[in-house]
Amino acid sequence: MSQTLVIFGATGDLARRLLIPALHRLHEHGRLPEDLSILPYGRKPFTIGEYLAEIESEDGEFARRFPEYVQGGLEMEGVCSLAERIQGSALFYLALPPGLFGQAAQLLADCELHDETLGYRRLVVEKPFGNDLASAQTLNRQVSEHWRESQIYRIDHYLGKETVQNILVFRFANALFEPIWNRNYIDHVQITAAEASGMEGRAGYYDESGALRDMMQNHMMQLLALTAMEPPASLFQDDLRTEKVKALKSLRLVSPEESSACATRGQYEGYLQEEGVAPDSRTETYAAVRLYVDNWRWSGVPFYLRTGKRLSADRTEIAIKFKAPPMRLFRETPLQRLEPNRLLFELKPKEQMILEAQAKAVGLEMRPRTVALTAPYRNGTETSAGAYENLIMDAIEGDRTHFLRFDEVEQAWQALDPILRAWASDARPVPLYAPGSDGPEEADLLWPGASEWRALG
Amino acid sequence: MSQTLVIFGATGDLARRLLIPALHRLHEHGRLPEDLSILPYGRKPFTIGEYLAEIESEDGEFARRFPEYVQGGLEMEGVCSLAERIQGSALFYLALPPGLFGQAAQLLADCELHDETLGYRRLVVEKPFGNDLASAQTLNRQVSEHWRESQIYRIDHYLGKETVQNILVFRFANALFEPIWNRNYIDHVQITAAEASGMEGRAGYYDESGALRDMMQNHMMQLLALTAMEPPASLFQDDLRTEKVKALKSLRLVSPEESSACATRGQYEGYLQEEGVAPDSRTETYAAVRLYVDNWRWSGVPFYLRTGKRLSADRTEIAIKFKAPPMRLFRETPLQRLEPNRLLFELKPKEQMILEAQAKAVGLEMRPRTVALTAPYRNGTETSAGAYENLIMDAIEGDRTHFLRFDEVEQAWQALDPILRAWASDARPVPLYAPGSDGPEEADLLWPGASEWRALG
Repeated sequence: MSQTLVIFGATGDLARRLLIPALHRLHEHGRLPEDLSILPYGRKPFTIGEYLAEIESEDGEFARRFPEYVQGGLEMEGVCSLAERIQGSALFYLALPPGLFGQAAQLLADCELHDETLGYRRLVVEKPFGNDLASAQTLNRQVSEHWRESQIYRIDHYLGKETVQNILVFRFANALFEPIWNRNYIDHVQITAAEASGMEGRAGYYDESGALRDMMQNHMMQLLALTAMEPPASLFQDDLRTEKVKALKSLRLVSPEESSACATRGQYEGYLQEEGVAPDSRTETYAAVRLYVDNWRWSGVPFYLRTGKRLSADRTEIAIKFKAPPMRLFRETPLQRLEPNRLLFELKPKEQMILEAQAKAVGLEMRPRTVALTAPYRNGTETSAGAYENLIMDAIEGDRTHFLRFDEVEQAWQALDPILRAWASDARPVPLYAPGSDGPEEADLLWPGASEWRALG
Repeated sequence: MSQTLVIFGATGDLARRLLIPALHRLHEHGRLPEDLSILPYGRKPFTIGEYLAEIESEDGEFARRFPEYVQGGLEMEGVCSLAERIQGSALFYLALPPGLFGQAAQLLADCELHDETLGYRRLVVEKPFGNDLASAQTLNRQVSEHWRESQIYRIDHYLGKETVQNILVFRFANALFEPIWNRNYIDHVQITAAEASGMEGRAGYYDESGALRDMMQNHMMQLLALTAMEPPASLFQDDLRTEKVKALKSLRLVSPEESSACATRGQYEGYLQEEGVAPDSRTETYAAVRLYVDNWRWSGVPFYLRTGKRLSADRTEIAIKFKAPPMRLFRETPLQRLEPNRLLFELKPKEQMILEAQAKAVGLEMRPRTVALTAPYRNGTETSAGAYENLIMDAIEGDRTHFLRFDEVEQAWQALDPILRAWASDARPVPLYAPGSDGPEEADLLWPGASEWRALG
């Protein structure tokens, strides 16, 4: 039985920058099934030779996986012409602008390409899935009219990152942490996805989206879910996804009016001068929120999330701050000076796990100081697979563990939609921040006391 | 008010090798009180100049601390001649063979040198304090006839080691560990003090003593107490020592008959040929015991202790093995293959703290592997104070925190005395082990199942 991977948007940025290179590496490492053909589908009038030249793959074994280039747009004739070219199983990878996902899914179904009589038929949908709660629900209705949930692979490439999957392993393969992974011992959780870079040619897309939609609704809410979820029955398929949804469903919902107390946005100075940005744009390039997971495990523990562009450093991390020990055991060390434990999952700039603990300071005195028990995720020579490699293999193998189920997407929108609506109707100026800073000062106000945002640099 | 440090056994090995160098360093770092004089007392007929030459301190500022050398033995005339030389406070440091501690303490009291009218008077007693339970109790009666417990500073130089003091800080300055520091989460504790070296000229002393008395009754029982104790009211003075005694009092007492199941000895091949060793010596150069702390925190958790000479490597560590996580979350990873967490306090060969945890293995699969979250106790350029420096300063400052109270000594003997008695009456050959090995095979039998002794190398 043959398998065909059809790439919609084969000449687009995503396919060329991420998808094709990932396929190429998988091929070179012998991971792709022998019988897998790749069928690029696009509007540009290419021969297969021209296409392969375009993606710099004209030579070598990899090129043999491409039987032809299929020219076509999102219309019946083109899409249905795929039917005669697919003998068995097929994945349809929608590397398209988000606005076209629904239409493509519909057309594929109209051409009966979703029918699994000859083999599996799977739809791989890129992010973002919807632009807010209502549009996500609309898109899902459109897609699921013909496609069963089990056929749909919604990508959040963070879930393909090894360091993100490591959060699961670390949480559930270590007996040490589960007993203290709750409101009794954890003070707060802080999740950061900070970028030093700015628009890098993506301003057109970004200005329509903003930080909350671009990073927080998907990637960061997933990091939150992985941190907050209960132990699942297994780490696979719906066992895992059901637990993530449970955590997201427990997120406290606020009204748009209340949201100003728990969400801050910002825009870096100079953003309006970026090419592709509307001159009066109110799009946020920085977003910070304080969320609560109202369940037995987390009641009262704030989750602080922040993301932004043109910040002082690249830093992606989950920082879990534990409560301080209850006693003052050290002379001349008031309790407030005793630093609490922190557990850090650092994804960027380094891939490492850090446990910040107190040890005796060196010297004659019995004073504590913070030491960082550190382990790199990879040793010197080890190379980890890229997120797209992981996810492509999973989709081929039918493993939906690291793809989003619709209820995950929906719950994440549910939690953030009030903030989006509040911002849309808020006429006040968007707070500005200096490029290269740690974000707008307004974000400090999310903390009930002194700000505890961790330095990015 | 002046302070005088009188060194009994001033020309002996201990004074020259450890005490004087520690004093010298403290002097150079400006830690010694200005008014502290050092009065060497010994049997050899030295002038002060000759003595200073002998200890290679004839030059420099340090020599000014030595007003004279007092010649004398353990007799009234000599000891009482110290009285006229001491105007105020004084420490009497007994760097003498253990058999002379009682006599020296008695003579000092006979000369009224214990009398605190003019200033503090303290007695610093080196190890070992007694040779078994009965002799320790006899010695204590002798010393405490005239000296109050608060005047007596019993040295266990392990308690002066920064890395040992660090155990206290690590346990009680981190909120993370206290909740899991008990029988519910800990599988067993393993304490090792292994030496690659052999007798190094100490065979005469060692052959009278053996591994259990030389290392286990003092140093290793202290490591056990620091690991097992409840949180104290403070980390200082009797707050700390009371909690250590409580832990030691909870040690399960076994009869000599029962002790063969929970204690193993060994002698390295060639020991009998060492100079100073009796040709038919049954002295153990290796000892391993399994102990239980029968209290609410530790009931059922075995503490494995081992120490020995001429082993494969120098290694001193406390290894706390936690229980395995309760679930099998990983495909193709049976629970027995999921390594549990371990927390390691490594004192030798490196000074470091290690938390062994499970993280995702690098690669496409969701497999766990063990990573070591590691923090050195010292950073590159930091130098820690030696154990003797710490303890001398504490004795001068009247801080008994890191000295042994008699009930600690007594409880440690109480737990090990049955083993000593069993070995004394056991006519079977002492198990031999090859120099450079990890000890006798018999030690494996202390484990109820397969041996889990950690590799030394």
